[in-house]
Amino acid sequence: MTTPPVPPLYHLFYVPLIRHALEEDLGRAGDLTTDAVVPADALAHARLVARGPGRIAGLEVALAAFRLLDTHLHIQVEHGDGADVAAGTTLAVIDGAARPILTAERTALNILGRLSGIATATAAIVGTLSDLKTEIVCTRKTTPGLRALEKYAVRIGGGSNHRFGLDDAVLIKDNHLVVAGGLRPAVERARARIGHMVKIEVEVDTLEQLAEALTLPVDAVLLDNMSPETLRKAVAMVGGRLLTEASGGITPETVRAVAEAGVDMISLGWLTHTVKNFDVALDFQSA
Amino acid sequence: MTTPPVPPLYHLFYVPLIRHALEEDLGRAGDLTTDAVVPADALAHARLVARGPGRIAGLEVALAAFRLLDTHLHIQVEHGDGADVAAGTTLAVIDGAARPILTAERTALNILGRLSGIATATAAIVGTLSDLKTEIVCTRKTTPGLRALEKYAVRIGGGSNHRFGLDDAVLIKDNHLVVAGGLRPAVERARARIGHMVKIEVEVDTLEQLAEALTLPVDAVLLDNMSPETLRKAVAMVGGRLLTEASGGITPETVRAVAEAGVDMISLGWLTHTVKNFDVALDFQSA
Amino acid sequence: MTTPPVPPLYHLFYVPLIRHALEEDLGRAGDLTTDAVVPADALAHARLVARGPGRIAGLEVALAAFRLLDTHLHIQVEHGDGADVAAGTTLAVIDGAARPILTAERTALNILGRLSGIATATAAIVGTLSDLKTEIVCTRKTTPGLRALEKYAVRIGGGSNHRFGLDDAVLIKDNHLVVAGGLRPAVERARARIGHMVKIEVEVDTLEQLAEALTLPVDAVLLDNMSPETLRKAVAMVGGRLLTEASGGITPETVRAVAEAGVDMISLGWLTHTVKNFDVALDFQSA
Amino acid sequence: MTTPPVPPLYHLFYVPLIRHALEEDLGRAGDLTTDAVVPADALAHARLVARGPGRIAGLEVALAAFRLLDTHLHIQVEHGDGADVAAGTTLAVIDGAARPILTAERTALNILGRLSGIATATAAIVGTLSDLKTEIVCTRKTTPGLRALEKYAVRIGGGSNHRFGLDDAVLIKDNHLVVAGGLRPAVERARARIGHMVKIEVEVDTLEQLAEALTLPVDAVLLDNMSPETLRKAVAMVGGRLLTEASGGITPETVRAVAEAGVDMISLGWLTHTVKNFDVALDFQSA
Amino acid sequence: MTTPPVPPLYHLFYVPLIRHALEEDLGRAGDLTTDAVVPADALAHARLVARGPGRIAGLEVALAAFRLLDTHLHIQVEHGDGADVAAGTTLAVIDGAARPILTAERTALNILGRLSGIATATAAIVGTLSDLKTEIVCTRKTTPGLRALEKYAVRIGGGSNHRFGLDDAVLIKDNHLVVAGGLRPAVERARARIGHMVKIEVEVDTLEQLAEALTLPVDAVLLDNMSPETLRKAVAMVGGRLLTEASGGITPETVRAVAEAGVDMISLGWLTHTVKNFDVALDFQSA
Amino acid sequence: MTTPPVPPLYHLFYVPLIRHALEEDLGRAGDLTTDAVVPADALAHARLVARGPGRIAGLEVALAAFRLLDTHLHIQVEHGDGADVAAGTTLAVIDGAARPILTAERTALNILGRLSGIATATAAIVGTLSDLKTEIVCTRKTTPGLRALEKYAVRIGGGSNHRFGLDDAVLIKDNHLVVAGGLRPAVERARARIGHMVKIEVEVDTLEQLAEALTLPVDAVLLDNMSPETLRKAVAMVGGRLLTEASGGITPETVRAVAEAGVDMISLGWLTHTVKNFDVALDFQSA
Repeated sequence: MTTPPVPPLYHLFYVPLIRHALEEDLGRAGDLTTDAVVPADALAHARLVARGPGRIAGLEVALAAFRLLDTHLHIQVEHGDGADVAAGTTLAVIDGAARPILTAERTALNILGRLSGIATATAAIVGTLSDLKTEIVCTRKTTPGLRALEKYAVRIGGGSNHRFGLDDAVLIKDNHLVVAGGLRPAVERARARIGHMVKIEVEVDTLEQLAEALTLPVDAVLLDNMSPETLRKAVAMVGGRLLTEASGGITPETVRAVAEAGVDMISLGWLTHTVKNFDVALDFQSA
Repeated sequence: MTTPPVPPLYHLFYVPLIRHALEEDLGRAGDLTTDAVVPADALAHARLVARGPGRIAGLEVALAAFRLLDTHLHIQVEHGDGADVAAGTTLAVIDGAARPILTAERTALNILGRLSGIATATAAIVGTLSDLKTEIVCTRKTTPGLRALEKYAVRIGGGSNHRFGLDDAVLIKDNHLVVAGGLRPAVERARARIGHMVKIEVEVDTLEQLAEALTLPVDAVLLDNMSPETLRKAVAMVGGRLLTEASGGITPETVRAVAEAGVDMISLGWLTHTVKNFDVALDFQSA
Repeated sequence: MTTPPVPPLYHLFYVPLIRHALEEDLGRAGDLTTDAVVPADALAHARLVARGPGRIAGLEVALAAFRLLDTHLHIQVEHGDGADVAAGTTLAVIDGAARPILTAERTALNILGRLSGIATATAAIVGTLSDLKTEIVCTRKTTPGLRALEKYAVRIGGGSNHRFGLDDAVLIKDNHLVVAGGLRPAVERARARIGHMVKIEVEVDTLEQLAEALTLPVDAVLLDNMSPETLRKAVAMVGGRLLTEASGGITPETVRAVAEAGVDMISLGWLTHTVKNFDVALDFQSA
Repeated sequence: MTTPPVPPLYHLFYVPLIRHALEEDLGRAGDLTTDAVVPADALAHARLVARGPGRIAGLEVALAAFRLLDTHLHIQVEHGDGADVAAGTTLAVIDGAARPILTAERTALNILGRLSGIATATAAIVGTLSDLKTEIVCTRKTTPGLRALEKYAVRIGGGSNHRFGLDDAVLIKDNHLVVAGGLRPAVERARARIGHMVKIEVEVDTLEQLAEALTLPVDAVLLDNMSPETLRKAVAMVGGRLLTEASGGITPETVRAVAEAGVDMISLGWLTHTVKNFDVALDFQSA
Repeated sequence: MTTPPVPPLYHLFYVPLIRHALEEDLGRAGDLTTDAVVPADALAHARLVARGPGRIAGLEVALAAFRLLDTHLHIQVEHGDGADVAAGTTLAVIDGAARPILTAERTALNILGRLSGIATATAAIVGTLSDLKTEIVCTRKTTPGLRALEKYAVRIGGGSNHRFGLDDAVLIKDNHLVVAGGLRPAVERARARIGHMVKIEVEVDTLEQLAEALTLPVDAVLLDNMSPETLRKAVAMVGGRLLTEASGGITPETVRAVAEAGVDMISLGWLTHTVKNFDVALDFQSA
Repeated sequence: MTTPPVPPLYHLFYVPLIRHALEEDLGRAGDLTTDAVVPADALAHARLVARGPGRIAGLEVALAAFRLLDTHLHIQVEHGDGADVAAGTTLAVIDGAARPILTAERTALNILGRLSGIATATAAIVGTLSDLKTEIVCTRKTTPGLRALEKYAVRIGGGSNHRFGLDDAVLIKDNHLVVAGGLRPAVERARARIGHMVKIEVEVDTLEQLAEALTLPVDAVLLDNMSPETLRKAVAMVGGRLLTEASGGITPETVRAVAEAGVDMISLGWLTHTVKNFDVALDFQSA
């Protein structure tokens, strides 16, 4: 079984990111311990093993840490991105020189643990809504430098992505309205200045604001901090003319009620800003 | 009150990091919403406000996001790094052009939420050991690209730092021993190859291994996954000749018992790998 | 009159780009001629002067070349981005040390000539459609490294922007259909995988294809290489339900007829891929 | 037929440039359309085809866009740099995974269209002087970031290169004279400060200035904005002792008369600042 | 015989450094001479030959210059890092295209000459102390950008490394004491703020200072500018409780006497700040 | 007295180089010692003092290390680049916060010591030829990353610069002739391919080769490893028609005899490849 193909962005974006992470860990002098303690010709057989159950994300990205240090390692993926695994499952097997395997271990585990943690949490919440049409989406509350990867992990978890940044959609929030003089002038200014291929969403806090939004050329409304009951009314008012998004303080406990209100999307900042690390380890044997 | 001085690394390291985070958020086309909706000459008065209680870390780093977009903003720090604040506390006040404040908001909050989250969790655990000499230390289980900042947040939380990377101390772990042929040859190889100014620590899993380690020229022992009872015996065996570090599966519930066993350090991976975001918001008014 | 404010992206993106352009011109040894021939304390009074009529774009970006070499130059903008100027108009006046003015001259003129050339050509074509609702949009046929600036110049010229890149909207073209098995499966795959905030456009070459597209959940249709007559029929078929874009071989001579067919957008690759440089010069006097 | 060898600078300079162009097009999220619409295992057979007649330049550089995304593509060059092709000529054939071919298409065409446009225009003008010794040279009026490539395209077109930047030759222009106190002091300052291996050229606007230049230790004279008649007198005055260069407002219509005046070089800014894109397309079939 | 394995940092750190050195030498236009004079298909057989006796260091790093320009060169290492060679010894044989060999020559020789110069000087001084336990260590007086490589060359020469930078150990020098209020408060501040795994060294200029240092929790003392006689007393006072380092004005003539005083380390700034280049040449034949 | 103006390249090139050097020294965690031991509000008065006699070069570049860490330091230059100073001379006085002064010290001294060492050695050799027209020139045997600075130091020392890299002049050496089929075809190929503004030099080892070179269109001859007597004959043969350069094994002892042979240039690799560090120190007082 050969290493599966990696996506186009792999070499362009993710490999540089992992290279930077390795440089951060190796500093100026490299892996003092391994270089001193492990003979250059020592061989090893290592397994990346899940320590708990979860959804895997970022395995190929993590494996780049090993590949960057030694292009001759033999790496076989057993359960890659998107797999739901039980504790004890072997994700990949690595054979070759012992030194690069040991040196790359922590860098690989750090990225794999974080991304699989996001995918696992996303999959859990998405699973509770499997009979509904509502999608779970992530926000821009991501780790500096890791946004594209964290949004990828959300997709692997079955979630969907909201904006990747400030430049790919318009979202007019309450703070914008403070200085824009109200919803209508804000939307009109946006419509006049923004390209045809960009969607416009506005945040509304009340049903009155929603009523006004429905008279404006917007594509979506963010219904902020509304109760399920209010959301239900809002969805009825919208009547399918716009996309509806619920946001604000939604937890695993309340998400089902929010979804049942009929919104198209529920956005959850905690999917990416409060990540429980997925526990993965490197089981290592002399070979 | 003027902006307080920032550390030497601020301009060298942290500003580039924040610049990169802004670039990640702004993409090719910048903040479509703000540029379209907010007049160029609109002024604002904004406050960074804590939404919960905690220990602040990274405020100056976060403020760099605003400063990078507009050097003319007036920024006044009210409660900076190290402050313990209640919910509702204003951390900083920002006055000036509305556009850069809105554009930088999310980037600033992302870094401030993460670092203050680490400091808050660290302060909580350190607080439970205030009558003991044991120090809480973090590990290399950090976010790619953010290690130095996350370790700084741990220090702000009252914790201490273990290795910054693979190159500033030797830590001989179980996987190294697998290919090094045992504790003694591993330590001897390390001692022969490593500079005088570098400390050597070895991981031991049993008291037998500890007994062997005590015959070797090491500076510290990592006592891995030992019960408080075993740790107490280990500390007694060491008798102050070496530094002792407890590690492995230690939780807020068990940390006090581990510390009472008398170890010098307790290392906790979750301080940095499983961070609860600290909730901060930007309260924004037209000015 | 002071230097006007510059946009947020100025320091983040455009200054590095100009820095890179200066480095490209200065090489390893710098401006041999100026450093040898011009005394360090020589002062100059210089004017950036339009040599022909046109729409100015990129003046602040071009001025960064001077500012990067000498922060003490006094620069006064007379006619900035968006101004329509006659030949002989002074755009900016620069006073200060002679050396940096001479060294930055070519770098500044290269960027200003290119961006103003794009704005001028765009303004000319947009002017011919001023009584119609059709917008002129640019494409991804831009110069490597200059896309955001060239799209900015199109906006300054009164045009609008289509996609900034492959990641901010979906455009299913004929080549995609070759491997996707037809329009319907292509659109369905896209709809299933793409976030809610991203628009989907499909290219159609015939009215039959258009009829099929109208049954699918798309936001826009690109009507490729159609005659004005066919476009008129297409616009009638769409009936305002989708955005319509005409594309393919449209010239200044044919653009009016295409617009009169009633499409929402006309995309023109030549706005950015075949630029007539706008002639600007630096008039230089000893001071 | 195998891919021909690429020049030494290919990997050092041109590949990073193309990588940057891909990053500019791919943004944070990559090619949304292709990744959604085209199956990962779809194969394609694609041909880069000239849509008009011209001189090819930059084919290998353009092909780097494909190679960077997929090292397994099979690429066969049919007509590479320097070839004069008719409309419809296949330049290269690409076989392999459909996704990377589609994703790299625009980036590759943008660079190939620009460089072949320069080569084609240069070849046309050079062709009109084939019986004369005068060389066509380009200037520093190039696109920021692309100077070396654009100068390469000029060479492929049969032209020659003037200075690559401010650091590889001295060119004393009118603006320098304004602050240097005249031709003689300027040249003397230059000669005293510049290394032996660097040539010195001075710009002269009149035959009187030329007479003075002929008394000074310079290697070349730039005869600015002179009529063919005046140029003829200038060439006679120089008598082969210096290189002569004609510059300023020379068009395809006037270039032959200028060349017949006997100058060694004619420099044309428009070769690189006003480029007509060469039309190339990717013909794409499922395979 | 195949090319020996290269260290983990090779691809991460040293290849980028050599790439940068090549870029510095190639400028914008590349190797004008070779590209013009040498046919693209010319083959060569070249040998890197030592012109004097010495200890080789940096051979693999130097060879990266060739490999970066042409991955098809066949390179065979005869005497690699650590070898003691006589004048005339062939270090490596390179076969393949003539152009990349000629273009990379100077870049490769510059780095190999410098690093082997450091190794040779280190080996000479270390050789004079072979019967003593004292180690020769280098300092932070290194060339900007080359610190890790120069410290590597010292190790290849048989020396040891002191701090790699300001961040991997504490060294309290006289200038620190000026503002810290004396040795005791300085050490106490350091001990309170620095992680457990970091060693602390203090500089002392007199035996009185040494006596105070011996009462403080430090790991090492730097005995600055002391005579061998004073050093002997200092070593006796320390009695093995701390590491001892002699520093300050020690030359090849005095180093033996200093070592015989019994110190653990002698630090020599001139190992890296005043390097005699090791003479290596490329013997080149047509093939 | 204010800080004197710095050259245009200062901010573009030298500041990034010093920033990189600081990063190399500061690592991930910064200056552990200073940050721990020196209070944040401690002030200092420091002087950069020459410890020996010599010619200063690189002072402004070195001072960038201090400025990068603290823009509020007050720095007064007493003896800048080009000054000949005696031991004990104060070069610059720095007042302000103690921490940044201590942290930048070593980085500043490393660059100042190296560049002043080059200038001092160059000035010494140039001084011995003050009554002759021969110029001392440096080579491409420079430190990776520092070429432009080292060539600048040579100029400050009164020397002149040969090529800055492989791209700014043609130098046909013996190895090129091996594969080019002799001097004439090599020169003819070069002349045909190289721009008019680039000089061509050929290396000759014998007077016979020189005779051939004199029949070819070259600008300079490198007379390699010839005795003063042979050089004298060579200079006579050339008769001022070409530039003459002596090279190969020339030492301070032999340089006068070589110069008296009448060559235009003498190139010395050791000016930059074997540098004796100039001793500078930071005298530091509490303020």
